[in-house]
Amino acid sequence: MYKVDLNADLGESFGAYTIGMDRDVLKYITSANVACGFHAGDPLVMEKTVALAKELDTRVGAHPGFPDLMGFGRRNMTISPEEAKAYVKYQVGALLAFTAAAGVRMQHVKLHGAFYNMSAKDERMAAAICEGIRETDDSLIVLGLAGSAHISAAKEAGLRVASEVFADRAYRTDGSLVPRKLPGAMIHDRNEAIERTIRMVKEGCVTTIDGVDMPIKADSICVHGDNPDAIGFVKEIRERLTAEGVTVTCIEDVLS
Amino acid sequence: MYKVDLNADLGESFGAYTIGMDRDVLKYITSANVACGFHAGDPLVMEKTVALAKELDTRVGAHPGFPDLMGFGRRNMTISPEEAKAYVKYQVGALLAFTAAAGVRMQHVKLHGAFYNMSAKDERMAAAICEGIRETDDSLIVLGLAGSAHISAAKEAGLRVASEVFADRAYRTDGSLVPRKLPGAMIHDRNEAIERTIRMVKEGCVTTIDGVDMPIKADSICVHGDNPDAIGFVKEIRERLTAEGVTVTCIEDVLS
Amino acid sequence: MYKVDLNADLGESFGAYTIGMDRDVLKYITSANVACGFHAGDPLVMEKTVALAKELDTRVGAHPGFPDLMGFGRRNMTISPEEAKAYVKYQVGALLAFTAAAGVRMQHVKLHGAFYNMSAKDERMAAAICEGIRETDDSLIVLGLAGSAHISAAKEAGLRVASEVFADRAYRTDGSLVPRKLPGAMIHDRNEAIERTIRMVKEGCVTTIDGVDMPIKADSICVHGDNPDAIGFVKEIRERLTAEGVTVTCIEDVLS
Amino acid sequence: MYKVDLNADLGESFGAYTIGMDRDVLKYITSANVACGFHAGDPLVMEKTVALAKELDTRVGAHPGFPDLMGFGRRNMTISPEEAKAYVKYQVGALLAFTAAAGVRMQHVKLHGAFYNMSAKDERMAAAICEGIRETDDSLIVLGLAGSAHISAAKEAGLRVASEVFADRAYRTDGSLVPRKLPGAMIHDRNEAIERTIRMVKEGCVTTIDGVDMPIKADSICVHGDNPDAIGFVKEIRERLTAEGVTVTCIEDVLS
Repeated sequence: MYKVDLNADLGESFGAYTIGMDRDVLKYITSANVACGFHAGDPLVMEKTVALAKELDTRVGAHPGFPDLMGFGRRNMTISPEEAKAYVKYQVGALLAFTAAAGVRMQHVKLHGAFYNMSAKDERMAAAICEGIRETDDSLIVLGLAGSAHISAAKEAGLRVASEVFADRAYRTDGSLVPRKLPGAMIHDRNEAIERTIRMVKEGCVTTIDGVDMPIKADSICVHGDNPDAIGFVKEIRERLTAEGVTVTCIEDVLS
Repeated sequence: MYKVDLNADLGESFGAYTIGMDRDVLKYITSANVACGFHAGDPLVMEKTVALAKELDTRVGAHPGFPDLMGFGRRNMTISPEEAKAYVKYQVGALLAFTAAAGVRMQHVKLHGAFYNMSAKDERMAAAICEGIRETDDSLIVLGLAGSAHISAAKEAGLRVASEVFADRAYRTDGSLVPRKLPGAMIHDRNEAIERTIRMVKEGCVTTIDGVDMPIKADSICVHGDNPDAIGFVKEIRERLTAEGVTVTCIEDVLS
Repeated sequence: MYKVDLNADLGESFGAYTIGMDRDVLKYITSANVACGFHAGDPLVMEKTVALAKELDTRVGAHPGFPDLMGFGRRNMTISPEEAKAYVKYQVGALLAFTAAAGVRMQHVKLHGAFYNMSAKDERMAAAICEGIRETDDSLIVLGLAGSAHISAAKEAGLRVASEVFADRAYRTDGSLVPRKLPGAMIHDRNEAIERTIRMVKEGCVTTIDGVDMPIKADSICVHGDNPDAIGFVKEIRERLTAEGVTVTCIEDVLS
Repeated sequence: MYKVDLNADLGESFGAYTIGMDRDVLKYITSANVACGFHAGDPLVMEKTVALAKELDTRVGAHPGFPDLMGFGRRNMTISPEEAKAYVKYQVGALLAFTAAAGVRMQHVKLHGAFYNMSAKDERMAAAICEGIRETDDSLIVLGLAGSAHISAAKEAGLRVASEVFADRAYRTDGSLVPRKLPGAMIHDRNEAIERTIRMVKEGCVTTIDGVDMPIKADSICVHGDNPDAIGFVKEIRERLTAEGVTVTCIEDVLS
């Protein structure tokens, strides 16, 4: 009855540089966000990542970022809505070549880093980006911050949407995440993080940093796969969710 | 009865940098090779170039190059066949997003510069690249140097092929172009270049630098649009071909 | 008695891409800001630009920008002060190799585009950047927006400073430029622009957009060399300044 | 009486990507080749690497490579001698800013990867590159393959030279390294590698793959620091050299 997706960023290696324990985390997640060469990833890495996801039967999504490899797409850039739209189309299209070649269907699009945060707040930007996704392939599901401008814009564009929640982050009452630099932003206690997540999934509710209960939609949980600790957490949250009667399955199944 | 395509490289601008008189040359050519962001072009330029080609009713193809913006893709790079294949898929996929969004069908793929020359000679490379094109979209036509390894590999991959000839370049008896730095490489006389081209199209024959008549297949003629002189040449060759009873039409029509 | 420098951005070409009428504008300006490969320019262009400036006896300065070739360094990027400092050192050092090789002494450093604007307002950023310049070569003059945080930081770092004014831009009472998108931001009338500039140089005063007279220091005037019109303006402003008894000379002479 | 330098490539991390156990290997080597941002490294990494080398009292050299981050500078690129010269000046200059800022003197220049191999064989290229180094700073020592065109060109340019040998690579009778893909190219036995190296240093002689004794100059030994095994090897070779009465010291001391 309860269903949720576990998504993680993958394919972030570049040339001789390796990041991420992709094969390990792929065992536990149900949707992989694959970097598309702007903030991370390169064509060879994209090809291999799609092949790996296919082998381990995990759904693939595009993970477009800012054109800032040196900053790993984590730095704000004041690009125009037209640029944002074109950057998304370019990156989604590039990954579509690899999914088509591998005979898998791309499931979703999730923005990366500073691009994600920008489109969560900026309505004009979100509208342009979601229009770009729709123009490229209107069967794609838009994965974005629960309650954000990005989700609204995706609905407006007539696309299917999936709301993402964060296990280890504190929320403000407006639905936004408490910025990392502020006190209390991170939920360091693993058990607390998991309990919060289970409540988001089963009750559709989370307690904000101000102590208020806030409704929240949790179609997918953001997890990480870049170190053994993170992998351990993904394994544990998956087991706990299952034990709580929550089916961990891909975004498409969660939405259906 | 006689048919030939005129193709030119377009969309080579990048950010604040402008190259090419795209709108002018688009009036006379029938197929546009659009740069895909590796050796030239950027997402915004690609979007605008596809829109312009659509407006002027010219067919669009992908023009993948080496990842060498500083060298405009004209310098050899010893990449592996696996890298070559992945680079082509990435770039073709990226442009496919823009053609899909614009509601036009991509017609062909032509490699750029040093990548083009490499795949004309190197069978392993050509096989990997054509396999990459086929995996991405097997309806694409491969445009390559007449008589080259690239054309053979494309046929081998089961793809439709179009043979390209050069109006202003001398040929060697093995079908390769005389390298630009050698004497006699360029046909500087405009009239001679046009006469040679007409003969290639109508008689399927060209006189090599050694004075030997060589059979050659001419489905498409490579022209340029980066300066007023080049535009004038395209206009003239198109008029002369038409006057000679040759129908100037897109690659797809030439092959049908 | 009155002295002022004319500075323009040069060496902005990249690979096969050409921007700017460098040779033409070099005849009229007294200081050249040479792009360093991040937002524009490449090693070959830098070498040629330094050689050209030497030939035409114009002083050379480094013109560091954001690492954003696609955006020509005009888009804000939220880099850290540490990154800003390191980016400036890298770019200034790279150009120093070419000035050393050419046997000319680098005169100044002027930031480019969004980097310039950021450091004009952000004190922490300005302090880090000027510290980076000082560490690299403390004989360099810092050229920045008159009255800005960048100028203050340069003084604080013990560096010589030169205050830059804009002939064709409206000022606000706090000394900042009226953003381009606001009405009245640009002084379109050439004569008015020149009159304003002469007043800034001779009287140290400018009328703000609010109609208030504001004191301003004018060591150098920013001009452009990217089109024939701009070149014409530089020629004219130089003639008018000279006719008004103002000596047009390099920054070093203006400060001495 | 016997002296030799141990050099390793450092500062190859980039943005969020980490490569190399720099702090560990710095304990055992006497000269560090610091990547300059073309094939690896970024401004922040360069600054930190210079600081680390200073802290551990290891000499610093520039390590310029091809502009090919995706290929880590390991792929051949057919750049012109003019481009090669400008690329070296740019990169050496960029690192000079960081050494100047840190108050350390740059000791040497060693080319990276495919750039190194190209300049070892191609006399015109080697001449252009060494001229570029000389123009930038004629006090720099050129570190290159023993017996190569690069070493000859550096001498010709009037620069000090240091000849580099490889502990774990087989040599051909012309002094070149046996290419990695050929059988017998690598000396896998650690003890044999160390014995060979000691002989190169003390006797100035090495047995080629054809079994011939060949004279060789060994001023510096190339070692690696990218994995624990490599670090172990550096530690061991240093101990063995010391036990054999060879002083392990920086290039400058070896040459003096």
